[in-house]
Amino acid sequence: MNTEIDPWGQVNVKNYGQLCKDFGIEKFSKVLPRMQNLPVYMRRGGVFGHKDFELILKAIEERKKFVMMTGLMPSGSFHFGHKLVADQIIYYQKLGAECYIAAADLEAHLTRDMPLEKAREIAIEEYLLNYIALGLKPEKVHFYFQTEGKKEYMNLSKFVSKKTTLNEIRSIYGDISPSKIVSALTQVADILHPQLKEYGGPKPVIVPVGADQLPHINFTRDIAARMHGEYNFVPPSATFHILIPGLQGGKMSSSVPESSIFFSDSPKAAEKKIRKYAFSGGQATTEEHRRLGGNPDIDVSFQWLKILFEEDDKKLRTIEEEYRSGKLLSGELKQILIEKVVSFLERHEEEREKARDRIGLFWQN
Amino acid sequence: MNTEIDPWGQVNVKNYGQLCKDFGIEKFSKVLPRMQNLPVYMRRGGVFGHKDFELILKAIEERKKFVMMTGLMPSGSFHFGHKLVADQIIYYQKLGAECYIAAADLEAHLTRDMPLEKAREIAIEEYLLNYIALGLKPEKVHFYFQTEGKKEYMNLSKFVSKKTTLNEIRSIYGDISPSKIVSALTQVADILHPQLKEYGGPKPVIVPVGADQLPHINFTRDIAARMHGEYNFVPPSATFHILIPGLQGGKMSSSVPESSIFFSDSPKAAEKKIRKYAFSGGQATTEEHRRLGGNPDIDVSFQWLKILFEEDDKKLRTIEEEYRSGKLLSGELKQILIEKVVSFLERHEEEREKARDRIGLFWQN
Repeated sequence: MNTEIDPWGQVNVKNYGQLCKDFGIEKFSKVLPRMQNLPVYMRRGGVFGHKDFELILKAIEERKKFVMMTGLMPSGSFHFGHKLVADQIIYYQKLGAECYIAAADLEAHLTRDMPLEKAREIAIEEYLLNYIALGLKPEKVHFYFQTEGKKEYMNLSKFVSKKTTLNEIRSIYGDISPSKIVSALTQVADILHPQLKEYGGPKPVIVPVGADQLPHINFTRDIAARMHGEYNFVPPSATFHILIPGLQGGKMSSSVPESSIFFSDSPKAAEKKIRKYAFSGGQATTEEHRRLGGNPDIDVSFQWLKILFEEDDKKLRTIEEEYRSGKLLSGELKQILIEKVVSFLERHEEEREKARDRIGLFWQN
Repeated sequence: MNTEIDPWGQVNVKNYGQLCKDFGIEKFSKVLPRMQNLPVYMRRGGVFGHKDFELILKAIEERKKFVMMTGLMPSGSFHFGHKLVADQIIYYQKLGAECYIAAADLEAHLTRDMPLEKAREIAIEEYLLNYIALGLKPEKVHFYFQTEGKKEYMNLSKFVSKKTTLNEIRSIYGDISPSKIVSALTQVADILHPQLKEYGGPKPVIVPVGADQLPHINFTRDIAARMHGEYNFVPPSATFHILIPGLQGGKMSSSVPESSIFFSDSPKAAEKKIRKYAFSGGQATTEEHRRLGGNPDIDVSFQWLKILFEEDDKKLRTIEEEYRSGKLLSGELKQILIEKVVSFLERHEEEREKARDRIGLFWQN
């Protein structure tokens, strides 16, 4: 194995192609031709792999019921890494998916010592408001906090304990503890409970996750298969997206302000962060840059434009070519990103305030 | 340690005095003088030890709120071993305790593969009806199935996972698994949840348990202490009762018909079981018995009379002396027990049928 994945720790995934091989993930590029109106990063390799996505395609094409299930970890500020998930939720909702969103307040409490009230506040202020502002229809979402789930869900999170062993959990999560075990089992129930008969019974479920969640998806699929006799669960499908590089090139983190731009950052602050921190693929001096050109593959501004902001393929190609040739300077490239980010944040701030009136709709289901 | 205790396995407790020493249990005989109207076996060493029972005595004497908490394992037929617990529940209810009774359907499902519907049926038919027939007032009991507890209880069963380690759980329960961990944590929540603010806040709680549950009580008390900052829990008090010897002298077991008399046995069947199986402390022949006398300390019929049936101290002493001297034969001793058991079962059968009308009262709280 060349890849290390730890669902609770630092991510170190250097080669997504290798990941697909190591873990038996299908390449998402193969199903792309059958999909329309994709968010920009889904077209450009941001979603790189899947398990059983054919089940979802079939449900979409045959207009059958399917579920989009995801969780949010209410432990920090909403940033552009989270937008990748939000866009997928909204994409599947538009395609007719019944959406389930779990706020992982229990997990935040158990594994990060987060007070529940704080988790609730973060979930609403940082996640739910932004989801609506980005286009989610809250009135059609089954939203819940893990500590407020219905009886059937609560019980399922305990019943699944019968279907695994400590050795299996240890092999997936490494150094385990009772609270990590409870968190892991609760997450399994999050993913499987939309298939309980109280929620309409077995059906295809798509879980869009970051590459770091792969072991947890496999674990959940295995448990679903072991429960087949009793519950008839369809093993959940999943897509795997890349982790967008942080501004400085490392991991994007809610707890490291300079690693990302938060949706709560002012346009001015965002501009400053990009100028100051965005890792550049350019040369040390303008003269050198003109002569040798820049490297867009490691330039964070270019990567962000590619994955998040520049929807026009032609424009993106021009930027890439001009940067590589040295015609476009690093400062100029940053300026293109800054304009996109500032314009996004300004518009989003308005949408976010408008969203406040509709937040209660999350609880109507 | 001379004593082995396994909450999930065979019990092997040879010496209750040693148990008190090994595990720091106070002798119940010391608090006896302050208590009145005790069930017969509480007067006669059937309850042999306690932890923090002073808190309960104080609550009783000062007419302050206290809770009696117990669980039932819905996995077999109700027998005289269970009556020991039932009598204590009723005793504390009469003393003014708020009674909480958990039916451990989750645990039966997780650790004994019991279908939930079956667990529910056994809980009602074998336990709840007998509790009422024995004198419990169901309308005053907080009764619940573990799979139907309220949100706060369900969450507590997960929150407690933060306050322990796998090593601690392993040291208490031996060979552990995810389902055993979930069962153990759920039991901790059973005992602690009556002190949540939603249930009126911290207060003394008495948990009457068999000697085999000692490690679980210690575990729960330790967790209560570790949660003190957040919840202000009073570490639960407990009393420990002996395990009544089975008819053949070993453990009484719901799954071994000849080990006990079930409340569902007909008086005729009960009589036959005692004659056929009750372990005797008498000699091999009448001649030898007259000459050497019997040993009431190992005679199960005598032990049952002492712990369960003969309330009159004087009569019991006469039986003991006459048996020891050889005047009373083993068959005659058995006959005394048979008459008591038959008369009890006949009366109880009537009470049990009358109880059926009141069973719904368990769910009114």
